[in-house]
Amino acid sequence: MTHLTHLTADGAAHMVDVGDKALTQRTAKATSTLRTANNVIALLKQAAEKKGDVFATARIAGIMAAKRCSDLIPLCHPLALTRVEVSFDVQEDDGAIVVYTECKVNGNTGVEMEALTAASVAALTLYDMCKAVDPAMVIEATRLLEKQGGKRGHWTLADHQEA
Amino acid sequence: MTHLTHLTADGAAHMVDVGDKALTQRTAKATSTLRTANNVIALLKQAAEKKGDVFATARIAGIMAAKRCSDLIPLCHPLALTRVEVSFDVQEDDGAIVVYTECKVNGNTGVEMEALTAASVAALTLYDMCKAVDPAMVIEATRLLEKQGGKRGHWTLADHQEA
Amino acid sequence: MTHLTHLTADGAAHMVDVGDKALTQRTAKATSTLRTANNVIALLKQAAEKKGDVFATARIAGIMAAKRCSDLIPLCHPLALTRVEVSFDVQEDDGAIVVYTECKVNGNTGVEMEALTAASVAALTLYDMCKAVDPAMVIEATRLLEKQGGKRGHWTLADHQEA
Amino acid sequence: MTHLTHLTADGAAHMVDVGDKALTQRTAKATSTLRTANNVIALLKQAAEKKGDVFATARIAGIMAAKRCSDLIPLCHPLALTRVEVSFDVQEDDGAIVVYTECKVNGNTGVEMEALTAASVAALTLYDMCKAVDPAMVIEATRLLEKQGGKRGHWTLADHQEA
Amino acid sequence: MTHLTHLTADGAAHMVDVGDKALTQRTAKATSTLRTANNVIALLKQAAEKKGDVFATARIAGIMAAKRCSDLIPLCHPLALTRVEVSFDVQEDDGAIVVYTECKVNGNTGVEMEALTAASVAALTLYDMCKAVDPAMVIEATRLLEKQGGKRGHWTLADHQEA
Amino acid sequence: MTHLTHLTADGAAHMVDVGDKALTQRTAKATSTLRTANNVIALLKQAAEKKGDVFATARIAGIMAAKRCSDLIPLCHPLALTRVEVSFDVQEDDGAIVVYTECKVNGNTGVEMEALTAASVAALTLYDMCKAVDPAMVIEATRLLEKQGGKRGHWTLADHQEA
Repeated sequence: MTHLTHLTADGAAHMVDVGDKALTQRTAKATSTLRTANNVIALLKQAAEKKGDVFATARIAGIMAAKRCSDLIPLCHPLALTRVEVSFDVQEDDGAIVVYTECKVNGNTGVEMEALTAASVAALTLYDMCKAVDPAMVIEATRLLEKQGGKRGHWTLADHQEA
Repeated sequence: MTHLTHLTADGAAHMVDVGDKALTQRTAKATSTLRTANNVIALLKQAAEKKGDVFATARIAGIMAAKRCSDLIPLCHPLALTRVEVSFDVQEDDGAIVVYTECKVNGNTGVEMEALTAASVAALTLYDMCKAVDPAMVIEATRLLEKQGGKRGHWTLADHQEA
Repeated sequence: MTHLTHLTADGAAHMVDVGDKALTQRTAKATSTLRTANNVIALLKQAAEKKGDVFATARIAGIMAAKRCSDLIPLCHPLALTRVEVSFDVQEDDGAIVVYTECKVNGNTGVEMEALTAASVAALTLYDMCKAVDPAMVIEATRLLEKQGGKRGHWTLADHQEA
Repeated sequence: MTHLTHLTADGAAHMVDVGDKALTQRTAKATSTLRTANNVIALLKQAAEKKGDVFATARIAGIMAAKRCSDLIPLCHPLALTRVEVSFDVQEDDGAIVVYTECKVNGNTGVEMEALTAASVAALTLYDMCKAVDPAMVIEATRLLEKQGGKRGHWTLADHQEA
Repeated sequence: MTHLTHLTADGAAHMVDVGDKALTQRTAKATSTLRTANNVIALLKQAAEKKGDVFATARIAGIMAAKRCSDLIPLCHPLALTRVEVSFDVQEDDGAIVVYTECKVNGNTGVEMEALTAASVAALTLYDMCKAVDPAMVIEATRLLEKQGGKRGHWTLADHQEA
Repeated sequence: MTHLTHLTADGAAHMVDVGDKALTQRTAKATSTLRTANNVIALLKQAAEKKGDVFATARIAGIMAAKRCSDLIPLCHPLALTRVEVSFDVQEDDGAIVVYTECKVNGNTGVEMEALTAASVAALTLYDMCKAVDPAMVIEATRLLEKQGGKRGHWTLADHQEA
């Protein structure tokens, strides 16, 4: 593909016509990483052991953001998501929390943006909870891991990186 | 600070009481970077030369997301932002577009999350426009650059990194 | 059913996968009751006789809330409702206004939460209009009356209570 | 048609049942016009030549409003729009900017309100940008130009006006 | 004023800084007119006599839209409205329904856009209820009638038109 | 008070003028109860012991709903809440989960509706998680417990019930 489909021939932004594309089952997986000081991770883990609210708050924020994706990203199509999952991998030694998301739809366009929005908002929510302790945190590597369904079939970041 | 203020003593998430904090002018600056292949940046630049919609779309998405921050991040306080700016630095040789945001409020809590949400959503919007061309793009280094106002005063990433 | 489907095996909240469930016509009816002093009901009736705004306001609030259900209840799926109705039964002698709602969809999951959310928000809207007169009002008995469609077929509260 | 379908037999507003109507491809085109002083149009054109943000901002506002139509207009059904376009015709000599919108869906009800809401909000956004210069501006002639699909088939304003 | 304040010097859209403007009481009045066939007005009046839902639905839609103005119009500031009123003047002989709105705030920027958005959305809601009967309706003359407060003081359309 | 303030003299709904009321610190506490079979409470407790998501999900839903109150309840004023708390009392023997909420603002109108909306939505979210196990659940006794601030001062349900 050598042009940007979200722009008309004369450069205007539009919500592209997906009305004639086949309705197929489509999934996407994405990730994002919050990197902070090791002691902040320790604080989060401690809090999570007391009561699950730390990660549940970020998870719920991510799930709700996936549903609101087309309301946030101007040229995204509204999609009736049939599944959303958000999970976390706490890598204490690396001072990192990795967010993983997965979205699914029976639709005529993909759910990459929904998965990425969920990952971003979950990471921002974790950031919000830690920002008073460490204002120098970074959200890194928000990206697509895998997508399936639609004309272009199965794509994984791993395959892509090997190629 | 050695505990997470967004959690009560027994670990429950809450929207912390800021009602007794002083109303002061607070600003925050944040950034986020979309990294992609050089030829994608070239496509974006070409499109932007024809008509400004590429960057305007991302800018508007970022501004609107800043206003909706407390609706996305569960424990953020609603704030009547008095200013939002979003700009872009296209680094063609590096295959990068750097998003810069700035938010301002007269309020009793800071606007870091608003600036970070604006930066994330602007970057996601650029991603959305390029994803058909390069599914391996990454959104990198979403972080705070500076904040001012409130009890803890002026903080900059640059000072922090030197320290 | 002996487990909570909204939680994964390890207890994490998720939006469950309904992508493989059949698309069928599903309806749900719900109710909620505002109980207040008899003279407040009299005030509402008087106002309603002048101009229909009292009940229309609550009705519109209920209809709009049904459409926004998946945006309020974190694990609800977005659904394209095909019908929403909200009606009121004013029981002046009992000091009660009973809200009845009905929702319909062609979808792969039910509309109970939509009908219940409509009933709750319609009752809260009536409450809002009366709260200056009677701060001791109660919203009672928000519950499902009937649902139809989907694998488990037809369920009514009446049948259930007889059984 | 000699009655208002959005009202039940006894005059109550409801979201009418469209669940048994056929799913067909439906489109609608609408328009709205901002009329202002000629020198304001000149300012807008100048700004647009520097950077496309003036019209892109209004375009994005219109596209996002089309997606939020059922959240604004109480009795509208939620619809998964498959296409939205917003364009502008600057008529400098007439002191007018004409907004044109087009929406499309595979659905069981039409998209007239989506197209009209997009046109209104795009016009309001242009108004917002000019209001400091000319508080006497008017938004004129927000109306449907054409609709297609559904039981009543193809309708155009032009045909209607000739008849 | 000879430039567009919503654009920076280089033409980028931004939410202008109002943080240093005085907090004053500001009001705005706006209007919009739905013009249709006389028999449609008759239908609306008949319906309104049975139950007030026709006009209450449009009124509530207008009030809620005023509160959501900064979420719809990209460069509007969020404002905590202290009052919103929407009323209707049915001009049966002219085939017109005139919408009047009024908004008020204690704020550092005006509420013109809130009043205009309320008027537009109330007119669109009336349109929605009549569109099956008359697809050739027009929404006319959405405009500001009066504004008060802020640096530029009192402005009325009547004074302006006399001048 | 012997009339409904949310209606004008002629019965029209409006968002009443609070612009001249004093800005004071206002709080409100509300409650709502989910009543279900004892074994459902047991399932919830079990799930909560594994991971805190059950109650955290309902808590976050309640907090977010409090912030969105004026967007749901048509005549509520937008308010910049300074604090929101949601907690749960699991009464296993009674088959009940009691939701408690507390909201706070520095504002010119009270936060009762915010506290009640938070309680309702938290209860609905718990309902949603249990509905597959027990469709006969009831949400009971959504009501105000206490409010403070504003012209009418301190009110508690306990005092009221004793009087």
